[in-house]
Amino acid sequence: MTSPHGTTGAVVIDGKASAARVREEVARDVAALVAETGQRPGLATVLIGADPASEVYVRNKRTACRAAGMEDLHRYLPADVSQEVAEKVLDELAADDFVSGILLQLPLPEHLDRRALLDRIPAEKDVDGLTVQSAGLLALGRDGLRPCTPAGVLRLLDDHAIPLRGAEVVVVGRSELVGRPLAQLLTARDATVTLCHSRTADLAATCRRADVVVAAAGVPRLIGADAVRPGSVVIDVGIHREAGGLCGDVDFGPVAERAGHISPVPGGVGPMTIAMLLANTALAARRQFGG
Amino acid sequence: MTSPHGTTGAVVIDGKASAARVREEVARDVAALVAETGQRPGLATVLIGADPASEVYVRNKRTACRAAGMEDLHRYLPADVSQEVAEKVLDELAADDFVSGILLQLPLPEHLDRRALLDRIPAEKDVDGLTVQSAGLLALGRDGLRPCTPAGVLRLLDDHAIPLRGAEVVVVGRSELVGRPLAQLLTARDATVTLCHSRTADLAATCRRADVVVAAAGVPRLIGADAVRPGSVVIDVGIHREAGGLCGDVDFGPVAERAGHISPVPGGVGPMTIAMLLANTALAARRQFGG
Repeated sequence: MTSPHGTTGAVVIDGKASAARVREEVARDVAALVAETGQRPGLATVLIGADPASEVYVRNKRTACRAAGMEDLHRYLPADVSQEVAEKVLDELAADDFVSGILLQLPLPEHLDRRALLDRIPAEKDVDGLTVQSAGLLALGRDGLRPCTPAGVLRLLDDHAIPLRGAEVVVVGRSELVGRPLAQLLTARDATVTLCHSRTADLAATCRRADVVVAAAGVPRLIGADAVRPGSVVIDVGIHREAGGLCGDVDFGPVAERAGHISPVPGGVGPMTIAMLLANTALAARRQFGG
Repeated sequence: MTSPHGTTGAVVIDGKASAARVREEVARDVAALVAETGQRPGLATVLIGADPASEVYVRNKRTACRAAGMEDLHRYLPADVSQEVAEKVLDELAADDFVSGILLQLPLPEHLDRRALLDRIPAEKDVDGLTVQSAGLLALGRDGLRPCTPAGVLRLLDDHAIPLRGAEVVVVGRSELVGRPLAQLLTARDATVTLCHSRTADLAATCRRADVVVAAAGVPRLIGADAVRPGSVVIDVGIHREAGGLCGDVDFGPVAERAGHISPVPGGVGPMTIAMLLANTALAARRQFGG
């Protein structure tokens, strides 16, 4: 098959297209919710300080939120805000009926206790899926809001009709944000999941066993062609800024020659994260309004 | 090597001996805590109804608790207790400074909402490690009380100096009680973990890759000799009552011929569960008393 990149080899998974579909679905859902209940979902993004990358991310989230027809209930706090005041703001948002979802933009200024702040966010408004309560609901297979990036990976796989039931999936990287929750989501979808990390004895050999490899280790081009079985599916969660531009955890060129499907960087998993944040906010609102 | 069972083959892992060591450690820790703080740990076992197996389990837990020098703060509730009253009893125990740990014996009578009751137990007294909060703390790698059976499996492996760092471990069975939390505990110990289940395509082939296989599927003799690489470690969490006596998820005789280590049923993982419950209660008390 000829891929959009022009090489013989893998189908290149189009994250922008999938993300656009999710956003359209959310916009329709939001419109229906407003029609049914007279209430409009609201997303409170909380930005503390002036980290330039965080400013860009939050701006993109707010724009996407408004484009989906949701209220943009942004809160900015200065870099020197005290833990106490930051907690009070989160408590206020937790109690506010106009707020369906709360997103605390990370990283935080160093003097703040990240975990203590995250844990002020009630599970039903935790649209990033990062609190202890949300992690516990996922671990126990109960209803809850799932972390956005792992949820985006699943959606990409589903949009390309990749079978997961009984499939061998290798997840590379055991982070709280991606690897660990993704392994659990995939297990719940009946995949046989192996979770690899920096201590894994033979990473390439382990990955070669897989029908699907998800690279989320945070190491540029960690996954080479020797780690990929011909025809398998490779999803790249990594994103690294280098002299030549952006790259992922996968060595795209050689891997695309062997894989059956591959997600590029940029334009693969990246666009899904905000899309799934919107989907989580709409879901939280539906439960909140009883719609 | 000649095993205690007299066959050439595996070293048979002695769960009774490991459990006895854990109990002795707990008894020493409790004595030290009483000496340091003047307070004595207390375990509240809550038994609802008259399930004969549950009565035996609770009696054994209470006996072990007293033998370790802890207060036995047992509560019995009749089988027809209302959800409301059961929740009130748990709330009372949660607020009681004499109670270090709360164990709600499962299964419950059918009219009761198990999850709603478990979630009344605060994480710091959740000595069974089964609440959403405890599951979330485990998933995020934060301090907390871990489920007893998975913790017992780890202790057995440690007592036999089985290396976990970089080891390939296959866990068979994805239950909330054992398989899922055990996979996470093993990942935290730097093992490369594969979590298998009823949808796994080729269970025997997957298990043969492992340095350590933990069978926790709840299927008698599921793991045969064809699933075991010579010299590997096999831990059996299953327990099934059959005409000929007890058996596990592992076909003991043939597997013992190939494995390097094997845990028997009974006398393997079983005795560890109560021992780890005591260890959790002592740990909860130490945090409670600030000792």
